[in-house]
Amino acid sequence: MTTLLPSWVTSANSPDTDFPLNNLPYGVFSADGAAPRCGVAIGDQILDLASAEAAGVITAQGTLQTGRWNAFMALGQAAWADLRAQLTRGLSADAEPAPLQTHLLPMSTARLHMPFDVAEYTDFYAGRHHAQNVGTMFRGPENALPPNWLHIPIGYNGRASSVVISGTDITRPHGQLKGPNDDAPRFAPSARFDIELEMGAIVGQPSDGPISVAQAFDNIFGYVLLNDWSARDIQAWEYQPLGPFQAKATATTISPWIVTAAALAPFRTATPPREVPLLDHLHEPGPMLYDIALQVGMTPENGTETVIARTNYAEMYYSAAQQLAHHTTSGCPMRVGDLLGSGTISGPEKGNRGSLLEISWGGKEPFALSDGQTRSFIEDGDTMTLRGAAIGAGYRVGFGDCVGTLRPARS
Amino acid sequence: MTTLLPSWVTSANSPDTDFPLNNLPYGVFSADGAAPRCGVAIGDQILDLASAEAAGVITAQGTLQTGRWNAFMALGQAAWADLRAQLTRGLSADAEPAPLQTHLLPMSTARLHMPFDVAEYTDFYAGRHHAQNVGTMFRGPENALPPNWLHIPIGYNGRASSVVISGTDITRPHGQLKGPNDDAPRFAPSARFDIELEMGAIVGQPSDGPISVAQAFDNIFGYVLLNDWSARDIQAWEYQPLGPFQAKATATTISPWIVTAAALAPFRTATPPREVPLLDHLHEPGPMLYDIALQVGMTPENGTETVIARTNYAEMYYSAAQQLAHHTTSGCPMRVGDLLGSGTISGPEKGNRGSLLEISWGGKEPFALSDGQTRSFIEDGDTMTLRGAAIGAGYRVGFGDCVGTLRPARS
Repeated sequence: MTTLLPSWVTSANSPDTDFPLNNLPYGVFSADGAAPRCGVAIGDQILDLASAEAAGVITAQGTLQTGRWNAFMALGQAAWADLRAQLTRGLSADAEPAPLQTHLLPMSTARLHMPFDVAEYTDFYAGRHHAQNVGTMFRGPENALPPNWLHIPIGYNGRASSVVISGTDITRPHGQLKGPNDDAPRFAPSARFDIELEMGAIVGQPSDGPISVAQAFDNIFGYVLLNDWSARDIQAWEYQPLGPFQAKATATTISPWIVTAAALAPFRTATPPREVPLLDHLHEPGPMLYDIALQVGMTPENGTETVIARTNYAEMYYSAAQQLAHHTTSGCPMRVGDLLGSGTISGPEKGNRGSLLEISWGGKEPFALSDGQTRSFIEDGDTMTLRGAAIGAGYRVGFGDCVGTLRPARS
Repeated sequence: MTTLLPSWVTSANSPDTDFPLNNLPYGVFSADGAAPRCGVAIGDQILDLASAEAAGVITAQGTLQTGRWNAFMALGQAAWADLRAQLTRGLSADAEPAPLQTHLLPMSTARLHMPFDVAEYTDFYAGRHHAQNVGTMFRGPENALPPNWLHIPIGYNGRASSVVISGTDITRPHGQLKGPNDDAPRFAPSARFDIELEMGAIVGQPSDGPISVAQAFDNIFGYVLLNDWSARDIQAWEYQPLGPFQAKATATTISPWIVTAAALAPFRTATPPREVPLLDHLHEPGPMLYDIALQVGMTPENGTETVIARTNYAEMYYSAAQQLAHHTTSGCPMRVGDLLGSGTISGPEKGNRGSLLEISWGGKEPFALSDGQTRSFIEDGDTMTLRGAAIGAGYRVGFGDCVGTLRPARS
């Protein structure tokens, strides 16, 4: 385990910041009404990389002028390492602050935007405990896992146009609903609106044809927290036989900072032991998952937050590298900016469940918030906050909050 | 029913051309090694719209210089009508050829490219006979239709990165396969590779929130033929519980010319009678489907073509307008360039089936080609050709061929 890298940005040396020099996550921000621009988080500051590049104190082939990270990602691994090295050097406690200092601004004065254009969004179903929980609810414990589950990371294509940045309000969706005892479906607001606690992996290099797990690992630029908002009642009616569609299309919220694979490297960990052997094309040549502590907070309107789940990305049965490799088996071209949702991350205990569907066991076991209110699913005005960090010795590589508030359905 | 609009481009006056003046479909072409540019098909010629606009004889706010139709589509309905009026006037038999004639080139000298950037691709399952056939094969005739089928157009998100232009070779995909009697899955080339005969609707105006069926109809810019290549054996193993994924990600081929909704207006027809009433949000205020004759040809390597299916777009149970409206119920934002596949279009008779899965009844009833060969699914070297046209009095509004040849799996 590495230790804190000290920076002359003193707030970056706090053990509590998500953004020490070890992290250097990339985002897009605006301030003073100017257009969105590329930046990197350091302590409680943002280093304006567009202005630093324009001033010639940081170089990245002009890609930092684009207001999105896609062009930089497309440059490839050597460029990724080079920019990280420039920033590590320039922000180090050993460096002269002068060249970069004029390009800093307080994060509190900035508004954060989508850090990249999502090319396409794919969501997986690769958390062992989540699949077991959901499968048990719907099919009983004996048949909880579909027959393919231990052999392939099950995935489906999501909707890129509905991926939004943390802080975006979510409108409760309408949809066709039909309860098991209803004669006919009706069109109404979802009454079982839920979160899914996930990690999102961002593809930073294209591929055209099948790639290995090792190549897939190299092609992943970084990670975000991801909340795949889900209307369980719409899903129940629509998902047979071709999978979730409108139930997942209202919104998917991501955290604002792309935490790079490089920053997470010290926290690599292996996927859990295989329950059945994997076919060769999905073998991991090394540890490709990460030890990232995760939690979910729920805050009623005008209320206080209750942490309703704590889990870890290391609970995933399949890594993002395995998922990306599987995604290419058919020859499917992948592009810079493709976003892969891990699938809901639950752990083995009741307190580790990454969706309200699991926490309330399909609504049968409402749970209490700290102020005495109870919940089965999300109510109007509730704010859901995902947090995550890899925990080092005296520092943390964090993601910043991934937040959304549910607003009432359209009238 | 309208009649042929005569043009001074004499090949456009043939009753056999797909591209009379009534059609005016939009595409992207290149010739003489130059960059791809926007054009319109007229008879056996292409009118180079980039050069016509640059010369000032056609005006479309500069959007014809972009080498894609997205920017033009984004201008909206008034601009769509205006360009069509300019072309109808300028190419009419009554007009002086001079202003446009210098911008014509023979279609045979041009290479055709993707006419638009596909924002996202959604595929539906909305053909009544196809759903009945497939459901009967898998669940028996009593349970052929899923319970939701008559209430919503079932759809799932596909993969935009794998949409290709007619003429692109298709490589037989690998995937995980597991037959019902196999102990374990294996990784191998698909042995049940198939087509799906579909129409694709192209969204030409964005929306952000639920829209009505009438609004959805207005937002559709035009249509293409669409072949949703499908690996049935990969699909069978992967699709539970979240739908098709890699089975559909090898490629989706579209025909090269966007036939506009305006060109198809004389051929509007109503969807078939409802078997159960639809909820209000899916009601069609008028006929929004089209009478388009469709066929599938199959040509073995070095062989001759056999037409293996004839059907009609009017067989669909849901129109593209209904599908698009349904797509927005959750609040899902739609963007210019979104592509909606209709779902496989089969008719009531055996000769009307739009997939080999149905024609060979899951491989149990191999069918004969005209040269005596038999097929259950596609073999390496086979070329599949979709054709379609709305048939007027003495003219046809055609789509051009939608072609692909299957190449052997990667070794």
